[in-house]
Amino acid sequence: MDLAARIVARDPRAAARAMRDVDDRVPGYLELLKAIFPSTGKATVVGVTGNPGAGKSTLTDRLIEKYRASGKSVGVICVDPSSPYTGGAILGDRIRMSRHATDPGVFIRSVATRGHLGGLSRSARDMVRILDAYGADVVIVETVGVGQDELEITRTAHSTLVVMAPGMGDEVQAIKAGILETADVFAVNKADRDGADATVRDLELMIALGTETMVAAGKSRGHVVHGGAKVDVIPTSPTRDDAELWTPPIHKCVATKNEGVAELVSSLEKHAVWLATTEAGRARRRTRLAEEVREALRETLIDAATHSLRAEIDAAVAAVDARAVDPYTATEALLAKFTGR
Amino acid sequence: MDLAARIVARDPRAAARAMRDVDDRVPGYLELLKAIFPSTGKATVVGVTGNPGAGKSTLTDRLIEKYRASGKSVGVICVDPSSPYTGGAILGDRIRMSRHATDPGVFIRSVATRGHLGGLSRSARDMVRILDAYGADVVIVETVGVGQDELEITRTAHSTLVVMAPGMGDEVQAIKAGILETADVFAVNKADRDGADATVRDLELMIALGTETMVAAGKSRGHVVHGGAKVDVIPTSPTRDDAELWTPPIHKCVATKNEGVAELVSSLEKHAVWLATTEAGRARRRTRLAEEVREALRETLIDAATHSLRAEIDAAVAAVDARAVDPYTATEALLAKFTGR
Repeated sequence: MDLAARIVARDPRAAARAMRDVDDRVPGYLELLKAIFPSTGKATVVGVTGNPGAGKSTLTDRLIEKYRASGKSVGVICVDPSSPYTGGAILGDRIRMSRHATDPGVFIRSVATRGHLGGLSRSARDMVRILDAYGADVVIVETVGVGQDELEITRTAHSTLVVMAPGMGDEVQAIKAGILETADVFAVNKADRDGADATVRDLELMIALGTETMVAAGKSRGHVVHGGAKVDVIPTSPTRDDAELWTPPIHKCVATKNEGVAELVSSLEKHAVWLATTEAGRARRRTRLAEEVREALRETLIDAATHSLRAEIDAAVAAVDARAVDPYTATEALLAKFTGR
Repeated sequence: MDLAARIVARDPRAAARAMRDVDDRVPGYLELLKAIFPSTGKATVVGVTGNPGAGKSTLTDRLIEKYRASGKSVGVICVDPSSPYTGGAILGDRIRMSRHATDPGVFIRSVATRGHLGGLSRSARDMVRILDAYGADVVIVETVGVGQDELEITRTAHSTLVVMAPGMGDEVQAIKAGILETADVFAVNKADRDGADATVRDLELMIALGTETMVAAGKSRGHVVHGGAKVDVIPTSPTRDDAELWTPPIHKCVATKNEGVAELVSSLEKHAVWLATTEAGRARRRTRLAEEVREALRETLIDAATHSLRAEIDAAVAAVDARAVDPYTATEALLAKFTGR
């Protein structure tokens, strides 16, 4: 049996090998992805993001437990895009999940940047497909932080859970990093600590103001006064007055005590239904698919161009370095050469 | 006079207008950049980066003062790549620099992402060129944080100053974000606080281990034990045994009291000499230029492809959505269509 067939036949070694091949982009990885594509599309993909220290790993562990209890198989992809220096293993966090290591219904893998930063969300997406073809009912994509790169990666998920903790200054960070646009469900974890209600109120305010601004007809920008600072809010989706719009619910939970986790799973399931059954949900799925195709095209284009233009690029750099040509004209000439126009 | 000529003739309104046009990429901006290119190449470009709270703005203010005292004109570009929600103005910080606002020898502008994230370092680079053509002797590019995007942006500078403060947990963050590769000079600011010496020692250790690893012949990877965690160190430049290699000096300073700032300026000047006079320095300049050309090519390519393939991309997305084709085959077909091969 070839690798694709072995993945679909639920051979865990084949899945592990395929995920490594895809992350490393070894020759033939695209053919593999094409071969498994007809066996994909069945898994529910959940993104888990939030600041370090918010308790994402513990909560992910609880989610795995919950899904397993309802008979679902679970794949987990842990992504660390921030570090070119760690070799893809945030071992401390992962150890917390290791009690699932002997459960054949749970499959956990880590990925990290290997120099191709922009391509990490593509790697994550491809690895989700492998776990999907492998038969995972739910695939969880967990990131270590909430930077711009992490937010890109959560866009590979169907539903994104943003995990916060009281008193971590998450709120301002959240607005800054564009979380409102990414979050489908909010978890205020460690809710037995002081400040949980304040965090919930801050989020409610942020969502209310964000939604209001987006819905207000003809108004494309607004601002939120938050933490004493005026913060511009720029809706990225087209302004629409649509009763079908999804408003992210906010759940308090205490992952260490397994409190409030069932409600999170329930909200994630409602979001999956929203995606599948409403026009707004279907439109969002298509938007994400369009992003994937554009991103893949971008990467394929630049790979093809740098490969076929290697000598020309070197010559252009030398010419710019000698100030014989400006970099803008040099770039246009390279483009013309590549497209033959 | 056209806009380019007015910039070279040191008309501040023309420079401001050009920087806005370039950031917004209004039609004709490329022609403007081509026109001013022959008047560029004279300015020294200094990047200033570091965690929020390290005192970057205060230190930048002191650097401006120092450069002005030696008769140099100064341009400052403040970049905030982390937030799609702030409209380009970190006003609180900027106010600290406002005492220079009436000095015609100082020109300060802010930029932020306007949706084109990857393009921000290109915008920054183009804006540096405008200030260079405008006659700035020194251009300072200051970022608000030290994320991956900010580090990309500091690569548009000739010399990068990384600002740290004691006791902020900067050190681990620093290793994680690839700072060792970016920093040409380190400033340990707020050095009158506890922990400054420890921060200096941590940096010295990091530099020593990093350099050792890079120089060790045939060894392409190593690791540093830091803060109890084993951290992989992957040198990104080719292993070389070169006496000309630049080792980033570490300076303690107290920007609020104007202490240690002269030493920083002196180190930045030494670095400029290193860039200009050593083979390693010239090689680095060419590497950065090659990065610029590749980045511009990448962006130009994707602009041209998405423009000319608009209908085909929509059709491909619909086909993938209907599962009539896999996204990998669809992408290859788009590439073939674009290159006509």
